[in-house]
Amino acid sequence: MTASNLQLDEQGRLHHFLTIEGFNRRILTEILDNAEGFATVGSKQMKKAPLLRGKTIVNLFFETSTRTRTTFELAAKRLSADVVTINIAQSAVANKGESLLDMLHNLEAMHCDMFVVRHGESGAAHFIARHVAPHISVINAGDGRHAHPTQAMLDMFTIRRHKQNFADLKVAIVGDLMHSRVARSEIHALTTLGTGEVRVIAPKTLVPPAVSTLGVHVFHDLREGLRDVDVVIMLRLQRERMEGALIPSEQEYYHLYGLTEEKLAYAKPDAIVMHPGPINRGVEIESAVADGPQSVILEQVSNGIAVRMAVMAMALGRQPGTEREAQA
Amino acid sequence: MTASNLQLDEQGRLHHFLTIEGFNRRILTEILDNAEGFATVGSKQMKKAPLLRGKTIVNLFFETSTRTRTTFELAAKRLSADVVTINIAQSAVANKGESLLDMLHNLEAMHCDMFVVRHGESGAAHFIARHVAPHISVINAGDGRHAHPTQAMLDMFTIRRHKQNFADLKVAIVGDLMHSRVARSEIHALTTLGTGEVRVIAPKTLVPPAVSTLGVHVFHDLREGLRDVDVVIMLRLQRERMEGALIPSEQEYYHLYGLTEEKLAYAKPDAIVMHPGPINRGVEIESAVADGPQSVILEQVSNGIAVRMAVMAMALGRQPGTEREAQA
Amino acid sequence: MTASNLQLDEQGRLHHFLTIEGFNRRILTEILDNAEGFATVGSKQMKKAPLLRGKTIVNLFFETSTRTRTTFELAAKRLSADVVTINIAQSAVANKGESLLDMLHNLEAMHCDMFVVRHGESGAAHFIARHVAPHISVINAGDGRHAHPTQAMLDMFTIRRHKQNFADLKVAIVGDLMHSRVARSEIHALTTLGTGEVRVIAPKTLVPPAVSTLGVHVFHDLREGLRDVDVVIMLRLQRERMEGALIPSEQEYYHLYGLTEEKLAYAKPDAIVMHPGPINRGVEIESAVADGPQSVILEQVSNGIAVRMAVMAMALGRQPGTEREAQA
Repeated sequence: MTASNLQLDEQGRLHHFLTIEGFNRRILTEILDNAEGFATVGSKQMKKAPLLRGKTIVNLFFETSTRTRTTFELAAKRLSADVVTINIAQSAVANKGESLLDMLHNLEAMHCDMFVVRHGESGAAHFIARHVAPHISVINAGDGRHAHPTQAMLDMFTIRRHKQNFADLKVAIVGDLMHSRVARSEIHALTTLGTGEVRVIAPKTLVPPAVSTLGVHVFHDLREGLRDVDVVIMLRLQRERMEGALIPSEQEYYHLYGLTEEKLAYAKPDAIVMHPGPINRGVEIESAVADGPQSVILEQVSNGIAVRMAVMAMALGRQPGTEREAQA
Repeated sequence: MTASNLQLDEQGRLHHFLTIEGFNRRILTEILDNAEGFATVGSKQMKKAPLLRGKTIVNLFFETSTRTRTTFELAAKRLSADVVTINIAQSAVANKGESLLDMLHNLEAMHCDMFVVRHGESGAAHFIARHVAPHISVINAGDGRHAHPTQAMLDMFTIRRHKQNFADLKVAIVGDLMHSRVARSEIHALTTLGTGEVRVIAPKTLVPPAVSTLGVHVFHDLREGLRDVDVVIMLRLQRERMEGALIPSEQEYYHLYGLTEEKLAYAKPDAIVMHPGPINRGVEIESAVADGPQSVILEQVSNGIAVRMAVMAMALGRQPGTEREAQA
Repeated sequence: MTASNLQLDEQGRLHHFLTIEGFNRRILTEILDNAEGFATVGSKQMKKAPLLRGKTIVNLFFETSTRTRTTFELAAKRLSADVVTINIAQSAVANKGESLLDMLHNLEAMHCDMFVVRHGESGAAHFIARHVAPHISVINAGDGRHAHPTQAMLDMFTIRRHKQNFADLKVAIVGDLMHSRVARSEIHALTTLGTGEVRVIAPKTLVPPAVSTLGVHVFHDLREGLRDVDVVIMLRLQRERMEGALIPSEQEYYHLYGLTEEKLAYAKPDAIVMHPGPINRGVEIESAVADGPQSVILEQVSNGIAVRMAVMAMALGRQPGTEREAQA
């Protein structure tokens, strides 16, 4: 079974959300369109939508991430779902030697509807999706170096709100491509949405060999790569994931690849600056840029809730406006 | 005050649920009947019942158990209660030397309605039930080697769904009787419900001396004990609770007491196989049996939510169908 | 900007609740009056009020406190808000070096409405209130030795329910004034509400130098200080915050400053005894007094939920009875 088939149900609708690969432009655009409906929810007086009332969503976090856990928990609660969080390090898998599959089958038997999975190993979310009961949806909230598809979609949503047509855009992704699941997912999303030109900018040691097969232009000089781009996506320097000395020092890295106002001036004057967070200020980005007029970093966070609400509602068969669920 | 009196209110209705001992067949049957009403809730589109809306349930976990905590949390949320979980190891009892009774009285003063108690010491749930305010219900979610009554009732529910009349049944409980609070509760439930014959099968080192007073037949040979039974209840080998060498080795234990297809053939052809989980595959049960056609292990998990919903609703005076609560 | 301005919005209504200082008698009385409306909620069959439905409240706990976290969580849930708890020690601030301000701005971007802040450093809640977006309310749930204003207000609420006019009262605060954020907040609240006489009773080593400027009478002898008082507020001996030997021994402290029935007899016959909890029995208070007829310690806990509900509802612009929020 291909990833594409695995992620869609028999009617071609979203079932799992594991990776951008295998989705076509229609379904990515549908996610963005549905997210528009939720983007206003957060700013209204009343933030609740009853779409997932009676549904049970389990946050399965094999890797701690307060930020990601909080965004998914808020998205689920604002859709009126019941949410249970399981930190696996503290659970029976660790304590009592229960196998992962036995734990999953137990949660299925408890009539859970969705697993939001965060895992340190690439492919973990796919593995889980292949083994759960058919009625359960799996959302990948980041697996190893592989993918972080909701992050990629919130970035697409943010770009579309500022720049309309992907076909007219030059987008640069800057930094630690090697260790970034975000970058992989973003390149696939940008390509699928027909982005005019996708560039990656990084030192040679942080560019994975396969990246040239993805239809992107590789630059090793930041100023050159930024020239005339509409969107700059900075990556977080994954210090905690680096084994060995891939960069000479953070100071040196900042000197060559840190985004400063001086370097940003090479991009178009109305270029937007994005970052998945959390920011390493003074390592990959200057505070004057992170907090400056071209930064849309905090908009990304707001949009993240809307996009996650859209993905969750679609995966469980509830589009905004349909409200077909029974009332308790 | 006897356990029986402690668990029932003045009208003879369920108030605490601490142990099976002291309950008569009428009240156990009432729990099973009420659970039937909730067993369909999980599979319906909308899983919420508003029976406990406005009630506050506190999970008081002195011993970590993600699985048990999750089932009680889901049961409470599906009844629309507010749920607060307190892991005592991290709380004031540990940090600031507050006494257990002071903590309980504080939670009472916060107008909580129910404590779900998990504790490593036998008798802890009774101790708490004897000391809380009269309006508070206590549910024992496992105390030391003593009791785990909701586990026993979900097992009775599972048996009744497959086998109808308890009077016609031969039921065998296999394994570590010595350390199992589940086994104690099951024997009492089976006896009270009038089960035709209850057998326990275990090595001599894992049979508590008092077991013969409970009206069960003791076997030390697995094949002999399984002959013609309708229900096989495997127990978890409590490796974490064993002090000293009560079994020669896990390999040897599996050889003698592990349930394999070959040994299961001694039971009736339509015998069902149960296990409270989590399973030690290859220690007390073969995967071919655990995942085979006679296994109802995952049904037990589903039934666990329904039975816990029934017990919670009954203890707080809400039967399904009454819906007498006010609307907010 | 003064603390007073920071805590009130342009119409003079409560926005943040950081410290008692800067509030006038009108607003403190308004809090107490609103809390009366919630004090009955807990004892009714249905404990939910829909005032904060659709609002998101974040418990930001930089310091563990199960008791305080539970009271705020229950208060928020009974107002129908969505609640997310973040234990900072486990979060990105610790793990990934994210700055506190970046974390706050991220939570703002997620459309959270209120931060309940507990922090070991004095001034932390003020710092956060000065830096969050204007629409966010900050409630101080205890910061270092500085303030714990909701605790002070629940004490005022308890006193008013028993004693009516503050002007006629003599109130004694006994114990570790030096390390007590509760005591600082209480002195300000009592003074602002026009209490007839406020006394503090403590060994010289546990009286901060500035206390005499607050309009209180200092006593070092417990019997003398208790003479004819209407209210005795015992403080917790903050053993975990004491550095160095400020008291000779707990036995000696109890001998001189522990509240016993014999010493309490110096107060008025109808004097009430209060304590913020958790109690160190036999260190600052005798069990016969803590559990005796003059103790209102558990009433304080109940009142704490009502006062926190009132403060939360006021800070988010919802008074009981108005119900102006939209229905989902």
